[in-house]
Amino acid sequence: MCSGLAEENPLTIREFTYSVARLNRDQYFRGYTFVVFKHHATELYQLKKKEREGFMTEMVRMADALGGVFKPDKMNYELLGNKMPHLHWHLIPRYKSEPSWGEPVWSNEHFERRLSYKEYQKLIEQIQTKLSRDD
Amino acid sequence: MCSGLAEENPLTIREFTYSVARLNRDQYFRGYTFVVFKHHATELYQLKKKEREGFMTEMVRMADALGGVFKPDKMNYELLGNKMPHLHWHLIPRYKSEPSWGEPVWSNEHFERRLSYKEYQKLIEQIQTKLSRDD
Repeated sequence: MCSGLAEENPLTIREFTYSVARLNRDQYFRGYTFVVFKHHATELYQLKKKEREGFMTEMVRMADALGGVFKPDKMNYELLGNKMPHLHWHLIPRYKSEPSWGEPVWSNEHFERRLSYKEYQKLIEQIQTKLSRDD
Repeated sequence: MCSGLAEENPLTIREFTYSVARLNRDQYFRGYTFVVFKHHATELYQLKKKEREGFMTEMVRMADALGGVFKPDKMNYELLGNKMPHLHWHLIPRYKSEPSWGEPVWSNEHFERRLSYKEYQKLIEQIQTKLSRDD
C-alpha cells in the first residue's frame, strides 16, 4: 500500500499533505472512499501530534465533502488495518435505502459494484469540485 | 445515549473534557472500549474544530492506553452510529489468537462475554493507572 501510493491511479481524488484520498473501486456503497496515510505507520497513537492532527483533519475534510455530494443518512469512519496494517480510513456513506441499513457494512456480504471509467470520473469530479469550493 | 452519560456507570474508565470512556460490557475482545462524545452530534464534520480536535485527541489517548495495557496486535477504530446515531468511537484491541483475526469484528457473530464485577474493576484500574502515568 505504501509503495503503491506513488503510482498514478485513476481513482485518486486528491493528494493532501499527509494522505491521499481515493475512491474505492467497489462502489456498492456510493461514495466509499479511502484516505491513506502517506508514510508507513500502523497505529494512530504512534504518530507525532502534528502528523496525527493533519491526517485526522484531512480525513474529516473528505468526509465533509462526501457528505455534501452524496447526502448520506450516516457516515461510517473506520480505521482497521486487520489485513493491511497501513493506516487508512474507510469513509463509507450509508443510506436508508440499503438492505443492510442499521448494520455495519461487514455484516452482510455483497458483490463488488464496479463502475465504468466515465462513471468513476464523474464521481471524482463531483467530490473534487466540492473540495475546491471549501479550499 | 446522551442522557445516560450523566448517570454513574461502573464501566466508566474516565471522563474527559469532550467525551466519556467506558469499557464495553462485552469483553469478547479484551479491552473493547467506547469513547462517547458528551454532547449530541451525529457526524464528525459537524463539530467545531476545537471540539473535534479535543474529541479525537481523547480517543487517541484512550487507544494509546489500551495499547499499553493489552498489547494487542492491532487496534480497530470505528465510528459508525448506524443503530445509535450519537458520536461514539469503538476502540477494539485485536489479537492474532482470535478465530476471526484478519477480519472486521462484525464479520463473525460471537456470544457476549461478560465478566464479574471484580474482573471489570481490575481492567478499569489497569487502564486508569496507565492513563494517569501519561497525564
